[in-house]
Amino acid sequence: MDIRVNIDRLKQDLEELGRIGRDEHGGVSRPSFSPADFEARAWLKSKIEEAGLCYRQDGAGNQFGRIECSGTTVMAGSHIDTVPNGGMFDGAVGVVSALEAARRILEEKIPLARPFEVASFTDEEGNLVGDFLGSRAFMGLLGKDEIRNGKTSFGMPFRDVLKRTEFTAEGILAAHEQRPELEAYLELHIEQGPVLEDEAVPIGIVEKIAGKHYRQCAFIGESGHAGTTPLELRHDAFLGLADFALKATQHVATKHYGSMLTIGQAALHPGSFSVIPGRADFTLEFRSASAESLGEIEKEVFALAEDVASTRGLTFVSRIVDKTVPVTIAPRIVNLLEGECRTLGYPSMRLASGAGHDAQILAAGCDIGMIFIPSPDGISHAPGERVDWNDLEKGANLLLRTLVRLVS
Amino acid sequence: MDIRVNIDRLKQDLEELGRIGRDEHGGVSRPSFSPADFEARAWLKSKIEEAGLCYRQDGAGNQFGRIECSGTTVMAGSHIDTVPNGGMFDGAVGVVSALEAARRILEEKIPLARPFEVASFTDEEGNLVGDFLGSRAFMGLLGKDEIRNGKTSFGMPFRDVLKRTEFTAEGILAAHEQRPELEAYLELHIEQGPVLEDEAVPIGIVEKIAGKHYRQCAFIGESGHAGTTPLELRHDAFLGLADFALKATQHVATKHYGSMLTIGQAALHPGSFSVIPGRADFTLEFRSASAESLGEIEKEVFALAEDVASTRGLTFVSRIVDKTVPVTIAPRIVNLLEGECRTLGYPSMRLASGAGHDAQILAAGCDIGMIFIPSPDGISHAPGERVDWNDLEKGANLLLRTLVRLVS
Repeated sequence: MDIRVNIDRLKQDLEELGRIGRDEHGGVSRPSFSPADFEARAWLKSKIEEAGLCYRQDGAGNQFGRIECSGTTVMAGSHIDTVPNGGMFDGAVGVVSALEAARRILEEKIPLARPFEVASFTDEEGNLVGDFLGSRAFMGLLGKDEIRNGKTSFGMPFRDVLKRTEFTAEGILAAHEQRPELEAYLELHIEQGPVLEDEAVPIGIVEKIAGKHYRQCAFIGESGHAGTTPLELRHDAFLGLADFALKATQHVATKHYGSMLTIGQAALHPGSFSVIPGRADFTLEFRSASAESLGEIEKEVFALAEDVASTRGLTFVSRIVDKTVPVTIAPRIVNLLEGECRTLGYPSMRLASGAGHDAQILAAGCDIGMIFIPSPDGISHAPGERVDWNDLEKGANLLLRTLVRLVS
Repeated sequence: MDIRVNIDRLKQDLEELGRIGRDEHGGVSRPSFSPADFEARAWLKSKIEEAGLCYRQDGAGNQFGRIECSGTTVMAGSHIDTVPNGGMFDGAVGVVSALEAARRILEEKIPLARPFEVASFTDEEGNLVGDFLGSRAFMGLLGKDEIRNGKTSFGMPFRDVLKRTEFTAEGILAAHEQRPELEAYLELHIEQGPVLEDEAVPIGIVEKIAGKHYRQCAFIGESGHAGTTPLELRHDAFLGLADFALKATQHVATKHYGSMLTIGQAALHPGSFSVIPGRADFTLEFRSASAESLGEIEKEVFALAEDVASTRGLTFVSRIVDKTVPVTIAPRIVNLLEGECRTLGYPSMRLASGAGHDAQILAAGCDIGMIFIPSPDGISHAPGERVDWNDLEKGANLLLRTLVRLVS
């Protein structure tokens, strides 16, 4: 049947949600468990109930709206938290489009062969303890120590954050016990990259999601007076970092084309004009859609770091902070999405997702699928994040029709 | 006459002074205008008065002890402020040895042909507004805006710091009006570098003092999602900084051997694991004992930065924070010091000072001379800063005997 979303209603929902947590820089600041996030959660609950879905929240704060039926559950969703000063579409389009799909399924009285559930996962952006807190809790993939003794990205013990909420460490760790058996999980998301726009294609069908390593690293040398220590006698930790950054980037760009390596943060110690840095702390992130490449990058990049350290009389240290494995999407879902695209007459292309998504966590328990729509100018995690409403309508229609195929 | 210092008294003075501002890390934290600095100032005042010198403090907090006579003044001194968690010898040896020289001149009733003055200059370490506040005030080299509207290294408006003291902006700016006409200024200091120890020579006679430029710089690129922006499309400000740091260091090390370039502080923005740095702020310091080299380094290093920026699609910006010019010591002072060394039987060598000293500021108004004693392991500005008491005795004897030659 030729079922379509109501784009006006979808757009209105996104605009309402986008006003919650609006900040003075024109962006949306709605990190999980912030006052703005709780306001957005209340809004979503009322929307789910208004749509006639059965509302449920688990111990990790994941929110669900269910159309009951016997059998394994088909789920669709994403997240409504944002990075500080982020945009109004990252995550929100997936939750609101899944909600709209549920409303259309109910309005058209589609006969269900399986239950359908809308999902909104807590803290996909990792402002609390690592990315994907909610979906990892949902899948039973959290470490107890991380939840009981972890520190947030803003330096506060996670348990102190929890004290100001209705949630507890034990409740988060038990959230997965409330999980229904899953058939499949679909997620519509903005691409957060330039490929679809560059290719002028409105729909991306994700084939792979990159895995990543987050590491906190340092080169340790010797500080000294910048005016009296000859250049050739220095053990300048920052020059070690500079040397490593260029070599490692070059290595990944040439040997592992398509994989990414990023140094996003650095701090030099003691950190003044006239003291040679004795220590350079930095974050190291690398990503690849291939598990094999990810393993090779880890080995090769560390060998590079050790080589730079020994050449320059430095020490290299590193510890893992977070890690996800690459996911390959089940061919049956890719084929289903491509078939529906053809029926709808939407141009589409397959691509790999460099960004991480809740879907990759759910892949541990069911087949998943992801639909991307273009991000104008590739902008995300910023106030300038946008979507073309026509693209959103196409993405939401594809999500709806694929869900109908999966639940029927 | 064979006049010598009383090393036991000198050592006791240094140990007394070194206990003031002793911190929990085993160092000395006595930045200018801190409670510890005021305690040290009171100690110095009482020592100057106890020695029978005429005590005077100018509008910038510089402290003096004078032996009156007609004619142009011969001065010797240094500073008693320290960097946070610094050592007990940097600066202190120069002030206490000058005081000891004055005591010995009075005890031996040396007939004076000129007045002699011991000096201790405020904030040589630049914890307030730039290095050499006291000696620059003494020489009338301060900018009005810097004093009236400047900010300290710890972020507080300088005028708010002044409110908690007996000093005022106008008093600091007028300090030079109280300056006597100067004949010469001598300063004994620890080397703060490895050369004298490496050469096993107890006395360094400074021929040149390096000038330096302090600049606050940044590369500006474009931030973006670390998972979705291909390496070849990035404008990563940190990689620009890394590239520049290696090239600029290499350039100075090869083309301007003996000059120094240091990047001591860096901050990446927005500064997270998964965001490409859109901006990299950093400090740039370069020093040279040659004014010609300093000018060339400035030109060449900026050309390198512009070249890196244009290759990588970045913008380079920079502003001057502080600047001193290289000083060449008057040959008559170098010869006088070398002659006294020979008489005393002390091995000595000529060297250039990479570190800055009050002496270089006084060079604007009189002939100056500097005596270095070895810094074991080259350590300074740290709790491990030390001197060998035998070296200190040699340095102080040389200072005393050269002063006697200058005042007689």
